Amino acid sequence: MNFDHLLAPRTASMGVNAIREILKVVAQPGMISLAGGIPAPASFPMEILRELTAIVQEKYGASAFQYDATEGFGPLREALVDHLAAKGVQASAAEILISSGSQGVLDALGKILIGQGDLVAVEAPTYVGALQAFTPYEPRYIELATDDDGLIPDALEAVVRTQAVKFIYLAPTFQNPTGRTLSFTRRQQVARIIQTYNVLLVEDDPYSDLRYHGAPVPTIKALAPEHTVYISTLSKTFAPGLRIGFCVAPATIRQWLVIVKQGVDLHTSTYNQALAAEYVGGGYLQRHLPTIIDLYRPKQQAMLHALDRYLPDGFTWSQPEGGMFIWVAGPAGLDAEKVYWRAVQRKTAFVPGKFFFVHKGEGNATLRLNYTMADAPTIDRAISVIAEAIQEELGMG
Amino acid sequence: MNFDHLLAPRTASMGVNAIREILKVVAQPGMISLAGGIPAPASFPMEILRELTAIVQEKYGASAFQYDATEGFGPLREALVDHLAAKGVQASAAEILISSGSQGVLDALGKILIGQGDLVAVEAPTYVGALQAFTPYEPRYIELATDDDGLIPDALEAVVRTQAVKFIYLAPTFQNPTGRTLSFTRRQQVARIIQTYNVLLVEDDPYSDLRYHGAPVPTIKALAPEHTVYISTLSKTFAPGLRIGFCVAPATIRQWLVIVKQGVDLHTSTYNQALAAEYVGGGYLQRHLPTIIDLYRPKQQAMLHALDRYLPDGFTWSQPEGGMFIWVAGPAGLDAEKVYWRAVQRKTAFVPGKFFFVHKGEGNATLRLNYTMADAPTIDRAISVIAEAIQEELGMG
Repeated sequence: MNFDHLLAPRTASMGVNAIREILKVVAQPGMISLAGGIPAPASFPMEILRELTAIVQEKYGASAFQYDATEGFGPLREALVDHLAAKGVQASAAEILISSGSQGVLDALGKILIGQGDLVAVEAPTYVGALQAFTPYEPRYIELATDDDGLIPDALEAVVRTQAVKFIYLAPTFQNPTGRTLSFTRRQQVARIIQTYNVLLVEDDPYSDLRYHGAPVPTIKALAPEHTVYISTLSKTFAPGLRIGFCVAPATIRQWLVIVKQGVDLHTSTYNQALAAEYVGGGYLQRHLPTIIDLYRPKQQAMLHALDRYLPDGFTWSQPEGGMFIWVAGPAGLDAEKVYWRAVQRKTAFVPGKFFFVHKGEGNATLRLNYTMADAPTIDRAISVIAEAIQEELGMG
Repeated sequence: MNFDHLLAPRTASMGVNAIREILKVVAQPGMISLAGGIPAPASFPMEILRELTAIVQEKYGASAFQYDATEGFGPLREALVDHLAAKGVQASAAEILISSGSQGVLDALGKILIGQGDLVAVEAPTYVGALQAFTPYEPRYIELATDDDGLIPDALEAVVRTQAVKFIYLAPTFQNPTGRTLSFTRRQQVARIIQTYNVLLVEDDPYSDLRYHGAPVPTIKALAPEHTVYISTLSKTFAPGLRIGFCVAPATIRQWLVIVKQGVDLHTSTYNQALAAEYVGGGYLQRHLPTIIDLYRPKQQAMLHALDRYLPDGFTWSQPEGGMFIWVAGPAGLDAEKVYWRAVQRKTAFVPGKFFFVHKGEGNATLRLNYTMADAPTIDRAISVIAEAIQEELGMG
């Protein structure tokens, strides 16, 4: 039977994921991919995990496998207090909610806040997963202009001064897709703007622990705690397959997030939360983090060097101090999707940057490059291939 | 800051969970609770889990901790093929979707199907968790009349003949809250009705593996496969804290369930799916199930005997061949919530049945009793206390 006639109006808005479609070829044998956005398996603490499974079964017994509170597993919420305080996020265990990945918070925020046609303000470009969470609730998006330092505060103020947005969604540190980090000065400006105009900010922070150089920048949550929903995850510093995210939200938002989550998944896996509680609370995260950073830093260096070496004049790229991505912008007129198909013919893939914009026609000359999955020599070769594809596309080949 | 002014219209419909409110006193020390709806910790295969964690880390390594397909972990989908076939659900691995508990499917169905004001037909009484999943999408509910044998097919036909329902939600086997099972004859009638009127049925089947007596009844999915979304879970036969549910849906529904799930949680915990794959595929489920059944059967017997012994004339109750609940109906005029408060004063709790109905004023004289958590002598004492509370409330004490 075809039940298409039963679909709700919102369902039409979801549609097919354009990135998924274009990336289907990446699964071909022999393909070198800078297209992914996932951690290297070598970053997972496999030995520690063996230890943790024994600890959890010993310490928590059957309760690690039982239904648990929607708000989250108590020991994990306790363990995250210090982890968050180190980022300037002051929250008691009772104020921390656990979610099924940070995606779970994004969906729940969409559900409680977005009515049909409501305005949601996002960076241009922005994280596609957030759009996938919000879009089923039928918002309209306003794009906020960015430059090499991330969101431009004046662009934000121009929007919130004149329009009622439900919330602003930002990933201010090592953003996916650009790798950019909003400076401390700009964070202060953003904090002042959301406080002045009484606007809710959703600060998504999956990558700040992956810092390879430089000094940490305070979270916006630390600067405007009453106006910010802070979201983070253990997917990049523990294991993404465990699906552990968490958030700290203003109290009136928090209570609704719990009610919504009860209807969506009752609670996040108790067992995985118990593993995470021991990983964070037992000091394993702090001990293992340098291993992850030492794994990624040379990969990032290799990519930056290769971009310097191979890309023709007229190209610029972000110089992130951490995270998983570098963003390349080519000369006006470049069609990065055409470059993509030329590179794929040479068994090398990346993501054309246009897929990270809300509106069509933007970002056509941009590329998102990931460096966590390939090794340094492979990254160097992949960039040389992409540079060839670019030169061919530009008629310079 | 108070951000109540930002809430979407749908959020007002969610409200506070009335059952949660009334059950807050159940946490008091010394309380004997027949109010829960959760498996006994003693039913969890703790020794097997130790074995499975070792197997999974050995067999799947880092891939058990990596991001995975939204549709589900391949080996688990493979392992469920035979498990489902034994219930008459014919599905290839590619047709089986894994969810974060069966709750995840209920939410996703609501999201893709329910537009504001759409009709959803549910049994009276019905499973409250399903209402919590559907209600945020703002349906109107139609209640379908039931008797001691479950849904009355004529009542269903009267509804679907005259009204366009988005779907029918049923839990036909050992239903929560009643413990009732729809007979084979009625299942055939239901199958014929949904085929005749081309209606979509959601068949929720969390309890059918917990059969203590009698012969299994075929699923409705087996009788009307093209018109039925079949949902089940490992929460009652493995461990609820792992949050593993699954479903088999008509193809046009299935593709949307995947798209929706991507926005909600990307995928269900890979690690827990790997544990489940080995539990089901390695034959552990079949070996462990008799242990669970042997644990619950005498508890259920104890409750049935106690009801026989202590309840006054004018009461009837379900005689389930499995599951976790018994449903008690008292004489018209009984206020089971008053009985609840009298019982709570005696440190004994249950759930007044009215909370399982969509509309106020229904089920006032009914009680839901759970027998999985207490031991047999405690169940006997609890029923005697509830009988005292009833007699006091009826002025017979």
